[in-house]
Amino acid sequence: MKNYLLTLMYDGSLFHGWQVQNNALTVQSCLQDAVEKILSVRENVTGCSRTDSGVHANMFCCNMRTDREIDTALFKKSLNAVLHTGIAVTEVKEVPYGFHARYNCVSKEYKYLIFNRDYNNPFYSGRALMYPYKIDAELLDNEARDFLGTHDFTSFCAANTDTEDKIRTVKAVSFKRENDFAVFTVEADGFLYNMVRIMTGTLLDINSGKIKPGSIPEIIAKKDRAFAGVTAKPCGLYLNKVNYDL
Amino acid sequence: MKNYLLTLMYDGSLFHGWQVQNNALTVQSCLQDAVEKILSVRENVTGCSRTDSGVHANMFCCNMRTDREIDTALFKKSLNAVLHTGIAVTEVKEVPYGFHARYNCVSKEYKYLIFNRDYNNPFYSGRALMYPYKIDAELLDNEARDFLGTHDFTSFCAANTDTEDKIRTVKAVSFKRENDFAVFTVEADGFLYNMVRIMTGTLLDINSGKIKPGSIPEIIAKKDRAFAGVTAKPCGLYLNKVNYDL
Repeated sequence: MKNYLLTLMYDGSLFHGWQVQNNALTVQSCLQDAVEKILSVRENVTGCSRTDSGVHANMFCCNMRTDREIDTALFKKSLNAVLHTGIAVTEVKEVPYGFHARYNCVSKEYKYLIFNRDYNNPFYSGRALMYPYKIDAELLDNEARDFLGTHDFTSFCAANTDTEDKIRTVKAVSFKRENDFAVFTVEADGFLYNMVRIMTGTLLDINSGKIKPGSIPEIIAKKDRAFAGVTAKPCGLYLNKVNYDL
Repeated sequence: MKNYLLTLMYDGSLFHGWQVQNNALTVQSCLQDAVEKILSVRENVTGCSRTDSGVHANMFCCNMRTDREIDTALFKKSLNAVLHTGIAVTEVKEVPYGFHARYNCVSKEYKYLIFNRDYNNPFYSGRALMYPYKIDAELLDNEARDFLGTHDFTSFCAANTDTEDKIRTVKAVSFKRENDFAVFTVEADGFLYNMVRIMTGTLLDINSGKIKPGSIPEIIAKKDRAFAGVTAKPCGLYLNKVNYDL
């Protein structure tokens, strides 16, 4: 038996998230179908996280254990030839047998993309949040720093979760203007359900004046989802980097 | 009667080009439908050029004469509310009555976008040429300079054209690497049918060794389409800027 790390990129607007579901097109099921076509055996692929329906990945990692002989370069090429065009395999490499795409992940980085003009960008339909109001990127960059460090992020987690440990460490954040876009970037050792989308919604609520600047430490301290802002739409969210000690 | 300049952006993969056709979805027909919904009269909109099926626009200009009273800000907002989501109106402004979007155009800039990795980028499906071979951007940047100046571009025009005057002036060119992409940019006072796509195909044929470096002046001198390279696919082509003396 050998173990392989597969790195993917996918347009989430075309899928019902990563994880296999009955009667829904998911990235995992498409990938397992493609693997089966090539290896003639249905292997399980284990993802680094479950992305939601509509959420994109510039980089997503999963591992696959198999006893089939694999030439990694050829396997990558073959997968890309048969996969749904909404998914690309960007890298295939062998990893130690014990490696697990989720448990061995040291940190992940998400980006939330906002198109900030008074019209919708047709090239980013389903791929960015269209936000027509003025954004004070400098203010939000400053506000976002309050997410840094180790906190109980219960307030930034969807209420319907059964994860018990809600303590996470945010390692880096930024909120920057990039031409017609505003981009919120956050790196953490792990993320709770909807965490980046609620962080983004809260920042936009601060931008609009619905939430007062300086409120984030207080919202975190409340440990109550009701005090944070809205959950921003999935379309703007990209899993951007997955880091391992390999 | 007043005359308005409308600036658009559109994802060409969703349309059969700009110009109205029977039984095909085109940008012009979508725009005229939208105008009709708002003004209750079918006005003609005159484009700055005819983009082909599959060709995109970061900027496309057209003008519309009408005797209806128009509040430009409101008209832009209304158009964006009813238009096909593959098209956005980025600006509406009044122009002199004699202004014509095609005849008054001083120059246009096109970009040809090439995704240059050994897999297809799912976010650029239909929006860039997927080219997996090594590109020598420095060589092609140098080769492209031979397009500069005033030439008879017959060799870079689709054979089935009835345009008589094939003399055009290329004002600026560049071929640059931008992360995983290679981008060919060309500005001219006007373009012949398929001109940028044949220029791009010729540059890629030079890259692959099918055409010798240094051949462009010779190909131009032949005034024969047969000597230039292939016509690159429409998916990578973007009308990027339209310049007027206004």
